Formats: sequence, structure tokens, C-alpha cells
Amino acid sequence: MSTITFDQAQAAIDAAVQKAISTDTKMNIAVVDSGAHLKAFRRMDGAWLGSIDIAITKARTSALFETVTGDLGASSQPGGPLFNIELSNGGLITFPGGVPIVIDGEIVGAVGVSGSTVENDHAVAQAGAESVRSSRQSFAG
Amino acid sequence: MSTITFDQAQAAIDAAVQKAISTDTKMNIAVVDSGAHLKAFRRMDGAWLGSIDIAITKARTSALFETVTGDLGASSQPGGPLFNIELSNGGLITFPGGVPIVIDGEIVGAVGVSGSTVENDHAVAQAGAESVRSSRQSFAG
Amino acid sequence: MSTITFDQAQAAIDAAVQKAISTDTKMNIAVVDSGAHLKAFRRMDGAWLGSIDIAITKARTSALFETVTGDLGASSQPGGPLFNIELSNGGLITFPGGVPIVIDGEIVGAVGVSGSTVENDHAVAQAGAESVRSSRQSFAG
Amino acid sequence: MSTITFDQAQAAIDAAVQKAISTDTKMNIAVVDSGAHLKAFRRMDGAWLGSIDIAITKARTSALFETVTGDLGASSQPGGPLFNIELSNGGLITFPGGVPIVIDGEIVGAVGVSGSTVENDHAVAQAGAESVRSSRQSFAG
Repeated sequence: MSTITFDQAQAAIDAAVQKAISTDTKMNIAVVDSGAHLKAFRRMDGAWLGSIDIAITKARTSALFETVTGDLGASSQPGGPLFNIELSNGGLITFPGGVPIVIDGEIVGAVGVSGSTVENDHAVAQAGAESVRSSRQSFAG
Repeated sequence: MSTITFDQAQAAIDAAVQKAISTDTKMNIAVVDSGAHLKAFRRMDGAWLGSIDIAITKARTSALFETVTGDLGASSQPGGPLFNIELSNGGLITFPGGVPIVIDGEIVGAVGVSGSTVENDHAVAQAGAESVRSSRQSFAG
Repeated sequence: MSTITFDQAQAAIDAAVQKAISTDTKMNIAVVDSGAHLKAFRRMDGAWLGSIDIAITKARTSALFETVTGDLGASSQPGGPLFNIELSNGGLITFPGGVPIVIDGEIVGAVGVSGSTVENDHAVAQAGAESVRSSRQSFAG
Repeated sequence: MSTITFDQAQAAIDAAVQKAISTDTKMNIAVVDSGAHLKAFRRMDGAWLGSIDIAITKARTSALFETVTGDLGASSQPGGPLFNIELSNGGLITFPGGVPIVIDGEIVGAVGVSGSTVENDHAVAQAGAESVRSSRQSFAG
């Protein structure tokens, strides 16, 4: 089982912050390892306090189920196959903003972002997650 | 009150693992006794970390209400008679994957499975629960 | 980061059960991976229900701090440098009975045992942890 | 109420990491704002997983009571005036490793560090907290 390094986690946060700045949003950004344990966290100035826990929980949810959080949320609605799964694992967040970090086909961690619309949250998390993947690819190249 | 033995719990897990292998799934499998207390647990290599808690909670939910979890979930939807019952008992899971273990008409425990679709989860839990029943019947016969 | 496999976790539990039988004790035995997530659990017939949580928490504590739990407890007493550390991480157990599983100098998980005196608990956990190490050594040999 | 900025929090973590490297320790480092809410966090490669929560809680404890955590711990021992204060606020840590960040005589946040002896933890937290103070002073100068 591979897991994210200190430098990769920082790179993911830096890339996410750049994306947040470019979309004029103020974000909480969390990175967890493959075991869903917090590896790095940053809160931008002016970001909502209530989003600290949500960002961390999105990252944790993404790592625990190896999925983008929004996909889980699509199944947890009333009448869906995973209704109220959010109550498990000490609390999950299943709306968008959590994205796995994948290197060589293996999930090494996840990014969770909260502070704006779920579309913006997802885009910023995606930017963070992709930065690790591409840095690794260029490193290998 | 009858309850499941160490050997029966292990047999249930072994049968569930075999079913998981035959359906190409990677499962978390929990067995609780008639008092809803954990008796045995196995996590297959590669199974989701987030399914540990869900497997245990499905088994616990099944034993606490002496039912397959999916039946409870049918009543816990918005507008249903048991809306949000998942919030009780320190957290329940009411989607499929929890199955009581019955011997001679008496519930002696339950199996909870998580790691795939709820249909697969239920099938694997069912295989585990039935193995105890049939081993007892063949033993008696 | 290496972590324990399904087969190794089962081997650890089997060895611990054998040790418990030989010492005439009834134990709860938990195995967690290197990320402190539950991998396997068994409760022997007649073992205390209150020891389920303690066994799991000992294993988790051992993995979280890469130590035998008793060593942590020696520092958490009144006046000690880690007083009340047990309140962290959602609850820790710092008396003996949690032992890391080490392969090639790397901690791949931990065993936690509860059900008798802390000396017996530690001995049974130690037997479980050592069985993985030695099976690996003979495998390598 | 003044509070720590994004850049100051990052500077505190960078200074703490440098101190950890120079003392050959592997640390979890948390920075909270004056409201005791997480602002930044880093886990160095190889640092104990159990220290994530402890680092954050030390920083939180330090900000909540505007004190170095060790001073609080001196009063929380059996027979002391604040016995078991660790049970309040959803859990506190009162051994050394939490240090307020002071600018112009005002507490703007706190650093919490965990991963080694409490002496090392405190020294690394102190290095982080002082870096913010001195950067501000040189900035003003």
C-alpha cells in the first residue's frame, strides 16, 4: 500500500490554493493519506470556519471509499441504495469536493475542499489531486 | 438466549469469504452474537476502509432488530414510519448487507457485509448466515 | 508503508488463540493494520463483552504510537509526561496487551488482547505478533 | 481580535519543520487561530499517526486557555486545582507541546506539536511560535 509523502501533500495544497485564487474563492483544503489520516491542511484567510471539518471529512470520505465524494452522494439520497451512509465512520460528507489522489493506478490519499459552491470545491480538489499525479508523471518522465 | 459460538462465527466468515471470492468482490465481514456484540471480523485485502464500520454496523443493526437490514431501510425513508431510525443506537445502517443467523427458529447472531453493491453485500452475508444454519442441520441430522 | 495481509492477520489470531487456550484464558483478540484500521477480530466463547472494545483499542493504540501499550501507560500516570493521553484519538488504552507486529524492522500492524490479567493479555498478544514475524522469517528462509 | 494569517501559519509550520529536522525528530505540527480553529497542519513522513490528534489538541488547548500546555498540566494532576480538566472542551492535552503565538502582546493563535518527547515537542512548537513573532518584528522594524 503506497501512501502520499509530505512533499506531495504540500504540492497538492499549493496547487489547490492557486486554483482557489484563480476562481476567487476562499477555501479550506485537507489532504489525507491512503489510511484516511490527515497529512496536511490549510485554511485560506476569510474561509468559513464551518468548512474546516467539512474539508477534512471530504478527504477522509474520499480515501475511505476510494471515490470522489459526489459519486457516493448520488447513491445516499432517500430511496437510494446507500441512504444515510453519512452516519457511518463517525460522520461522512458525500457531496462534491473530495477527490482521490492516484499515482500509477493506486490511490495514495485524497484531497478535500470546502468553502464555496460544491462545483468550485470539486474543481479546487481536482486541481490539487491532479497536481500530484502530473508531478509524478513528469518526475518519471 | 442462545448465541453463536466461536466456531460458528468462524464458519460464517469463511463461507462469506468464499462467496466473496466467487463473486470477485473484496469484503469486510462482521459477525455479532445475539446481544449485538462483535464476535468475529475479517477484512479482505483491498477492501474499502470505510466498510469496516459499515459491516459491523450492519451486523449490529440486524441483531438489534432481528431483521435483514434492507427491510428496516424500507421503512426509514422520508415519509416512512421509521424515518431516520439510523440516528438511534449510536448509528445504524439500514441498507442491505446485514442478515440474521437463525438456528432452530432462534436468532443467535447476525452477519454484516460491506464492500461492493448492496446486492453483492447481501448475497455474501446471506451465504455466511446460511452456512451456520446448514452446518447445524447437517450436524443434527 | 507496508501493512498486514488477510492471511497474516488470521495467523496472528490463530496463534493468539492457541496461547490463550494454553494459559486457560478467554480472550478478545484484535488485529489492526499499519493505519490502525481493524483487519481481523475474534472473541473466544465466554470472554468478557467489555473486552471487545479494549482489545480493539489496545491494537489501535499500539499501531498509532508504534509501541507496546504498557510502555505508553508508564508515561501517562499522574505526574508523568503524558498524563491523560488516553483521552486523545477518540480514546486510547495504555495498559499492557497491545503489541506491534514487525516484519523486517517495519511495523505492519498490531495485536490487541483483553480478557484476563494484563500480564496474560500481553503474553497472548505477544504470541500473536511473534507468529507473524516468525512465519515470515521461515518463509524468507 | 487579531488572528494569524495564512502566510504566518505557513511560516510557523516551516520553522517548526526546520527545528524538527535539526533535532532529528518526526513531528505532527498544527497551527490554530485565536479562536482555536485549525489554520494549518503538516505531518512529517514517518511521524506517529496517534500524534495527529494530539498536535491539533495541544494547539487548541493553548489557544483556548492562552497558555503553554505544560503550565496547564501542572495544575491538572490529582489533587491539583484543575484535576482532569482534560475532559472538558471535547478533550484537551495538557502536557508540553502547545505554545501561543504572540504578536505585540496579543495572542493571535497557537502551535501544537507531537511526535517525540514532550521536551522536543515543546522546543519545536516554540520555534514555530517564535518565528511568527520575529518575522513580524523585523517587518515592523
